[in-house]
Amino acid sequence: MANEVKEITKRDVNFAKWYTDVIKKADLVDYSSVKGSMIIRPYGYAIWENMQSILDKEFKKLGHENVQMPMFIPESLLNVEKEHVKGFAPEVAWITHGGSEKLEERMCVRPTSEVLFCDHFEKIIKSYRDLPKLYNQWCTICRWEKTTRPFLRSREILWQEGHTMHATAEEAIEETLRMLKVYEDFQRNVLALPVIVGKKTDKEKFAGAEASYTLEAMMYDGVALQNGTSHYFGNHFAEAFNIKFLNKDNKMEAPYQTSWGVTTRMIGAIIMTHGDDNGLVLPPNIAPYKTIIIPIGKDESVNEKCNELMCDLLDKNISCKIDLSDKTPGFKFADAEVKGYPVRIEVGQRDLANGLVTLARRDTFEKIQVKVEDVVSEIDKLLKEIQDNLYDRALKRRDSMIYEANTFDEFINIAMNKPGFIKINWCGDVACENKIKDECGFKSRCLIEDEEITGSCCCCGKEAKHRIYFGRQY
Amino acid sequence: MANEVKEITKRDVNFAKWYTDVIKKADLVDYSSVKGSMIIRPYGYAIWENMQSILDKEFKKLGHENVQMPMFIPESLLNVEKEHVKGFAPEVAWITHGGSEKLEERMCVRPTSEVLFCDHFEKIIKSYRDLPKLYNQWCTICRWEKTTRPFLRSREILWQEGHTMHATAEEAIEETLRMLKVYEDFQRNVLALPVIVGKKTDKEKFAGAEASYTLEAMMYDGVALQNGTSHYFGNHFAEAFNIKFLNKDNKMEAPYQTSWGVTTRMIGAIIMTHGDDNGLVLPPNIAPYKTIIIPIGKDESVNEKCNELMCDLLDKNISCKIDLSDKTPGFKFADAEVKGYPVRIEVGQRDLANGLVTLARRDTFEKIQVKVEDVVSEIDKLLKEIQDNLYDRALKRRDSMIYEANTFDEFINIAMNKPGFIKINWCGDVACENKIKDECGFKSRCLIEDEEITGSCCCCGKEAKHRIYFGRQY
Repeated sequence: MANEVKEITKRDVNFAKWYTDVIKKADLVDYSSVKGSMIIRPYGYAIWENMQSILDKEFKKLGHENVQMPMFIPESLLNVEKEHVKGFAPEVAWITHGGSEKLEERMCVRPTSEVLFCDHFEKIIKSYRDLPKLYNQWCTICRWEKTTRPFLRSREILWQEGHTMHATAEEAIEETLRMLKVYEDFQRNVLALPVIVGKKTDKEKFAGAEASYTLEAMMYDGVALQNGTSHYFGNHFAEAFNIKFLNKDNKMEAPYQTSWGVTTRMIGAIIMTHGDDNGLVLPPNIAPYKTIIIPIGKDESVNEKCNELMCDLLDKNISCKIDLSDKTPGFKFADAEVKGYPVRIEVGQRDLANGLVTLARRDTFEKIQVKVEDVVSEIDKLLKEIQDNLYDRALKRRDSMIYEANTFDEFINIAMNKPGFIKINWCGDVACENKIKDECGFKSRCLIEDEEITGSCCCCGKEAKHRIYFGRQY
Repeated sequence: MANEVKEITKRDVNFAKWYTDVIKKADLVDYSSVKGSMIIRPYGYAIWENMQSILDKEFKKLGHENVQMPMFIPESLLNVEKEHVKGFAPEVAWITHGGSEKLEERMCVRPTSEVLFCDHFEKIIKSYRDLPKLYNQWCTICRWEKTTRPFLRSREILWQEGHTMHATAEEAIEETLRMLKVYEDFQRNVLALPVIVGKKTDKEKFAGAEASYTLEAMMYDGVALQNGTSHYFGNHFAEAFNIKFLNKDNKMEAPYQTSWGVTTRMIGAIIMTHGDDNGLVLPPNIAPYKTIIIPIGKDESVNEKCNELMCDLLDKNISCKIDLSDKTPGFKFADAEVKGYPVRIEVGQRDLANGLVTLARRDTFEKIQVKVEDVVSEIDKLLKEIQDNLYDRALKRRDSMIYEANTFDEFINIAMNKPGFIKINWCGDVACENKIKDECGFKSRCLIEDEEITGSCCCCGKEAKHRIYFGRQY
């Protein structure tokens, strides 16, 4: 039976195994007969629905509109922008037949939709009055990965992709950074994820972009997870697709473009940042159920009190579930821990006789007894504390795993011995970036904008032009 | 410029052309470079989002959970259920290559997901305690159609597909009919669509189903639109996929299955049922904006009043938009009609001086002047009236286009001369069903359950076993 994980592997023993144990045992995901694709089960999908609903509201507040583009891209359309096709052609799935007939031109399943949006923008953008166009799409994309891992790297990816067109470069750059900030705030405030935000190097930027910005989260094992990107394209694509508008000076001009996206990968980031040996730990602000009520014993008064508490919580918009299965309380406690409900509410007859129930925090395992009449207000307070604690804990751990290297030897020494990110001075030369990658597999994460550059390149000793993070990546 | 429809073709002159003019001019859809696929533009997608949000709540109220299955099906998996593969293999898109490598086994893009759900159910259903499983999925599917038409028939279809498993046949049949009723109520109360609901004949049922139920809407031109289906599978699929559970009698048994779905086709049904020569007419309960405010003149007091009205309407949860473009009022009125906003609010200085604004109903074009302080309550009343009127009007038209035929000659005579549905007595023999189809292209729509069967088969004269509708179909 595919679904039985008897015991979760310890996080410090085998992190990769721990990860797959948790996602299976918490019923987030199942494997399927379709190689490289995963099944997102109800509990996992509910997390994604919460992410969608919160982000969608933010996008719309800023004037973005949802649309739906085709899921297929004819080969000739993919070929229009040279850098872009070079980046994506090696990893697309090709459709060659419809029914029993061979297609005249093969099509790929979209790996991303820049060319589809451009094909449409060419028809609908004629004047500065048509700008900006602020579009977003929730959909599935496909990249034919060789090695896959649920949520982190798979052949099918659920995501949103924003695509916008602007009358000026300044506006487009502003939009690129504005959406990066929306992601940063969401990950910080809702997912409790500390992220390092910055610009990618030319080597690592999106195929066809002028500038790519990234959100880099550090997982428990010190490995980086690129957890969202925002790109500025200038007007390269617009020119390749012959998109022109009449600007305010009555001249034809190619508009300026952005795209930005986040995926179900964020679920992976939550698991690998907050989870522990007992399973999933969900930040209250994204949990499908913030609380779970567990009745102890079969007394009618216990069940009644459970129902009452649930109504009180729901009244205050605190999501809640009662575990009414015929399992033992011990089994239910463990299951509630595996699934990462932020607060467990234990309701037993003996406690009730004294007017009390017991609350258990998932993040610290701390148990507190509270008066029945204070449950809702206590939980409200606890949820905020848990949300903050998860962020602080993750931030502290991350910061303790960021190192600084001044020489290449120092770099390699840290890279080989200490998990985490390494911060260096860099001359900006791709040769140095490649040398590090070839030697130890660390890739550049992003440039650091707010630190002074003094000293020489960690790699070649020439004058440094940037401060930059390196790390291993998922 | 692909987007310019100068004038909408008259509905009675060329209905097909009228339809495509309306969807283009109302900015619902655009064509793309991807043959057979459409682009759903923001205004069209907002209608779909409303449909999703209302239906999703209904599904969840009834205990359904959303999941996400793979979008690809390996050929061997599609082949497991014989009837099913026969029905779908001719119209799937085949993926043969990932990047530059040929796949060992080709995969199709899901045309529907029964086999994917079964593959998963086999792993997670072991005992009656695991039942029912009530799953739903919002996704895109692909059927390689030769002739396509926006919303009605396209290679990519946005839809939801419910897939459920039950411990008994009775429960599964109940679920099949329950979801059919959810669709019927939704189409009646939200989309203002009268639908005929009934069972498909064996010839027309879903590939692999034991019984298929359908919702048949009649378009303005008398042609039928199958606007949703609900299927009962018995346990054919479960047996083919070796899905077994331990029942309450401690015996292994194959569970009983349903599936049900509706698509963006419902948007096509709204257009072709309610639309008129001036464009789209949206039922208030599904319109992205129930009202549009059009300021007349550039006076500051007019703009202020428009903003005030908008706030008042939004306070009462009546969605609202102000047209602030630099076009003339005449242009704005026409555009508001094309887009089908249920109520147009005209705010002009002269009216305001008398404490009045003008409301225009989209369904009847009736204009009424109301006191400024009564606008919200009047609109609230109007919206209900418009919703009811659209339904009543469609029902009346439909009923006036349903005919009865007692002989084959009578049938053909009506079929050739009068658009609409034809009701007949039928012996139940597929030969008669085929004869009608071959002679005039009418297909059986669904069996009529609530009418007494007296007389003989309209086709062969033998004893009738059913009452049944026939019609042309989209």
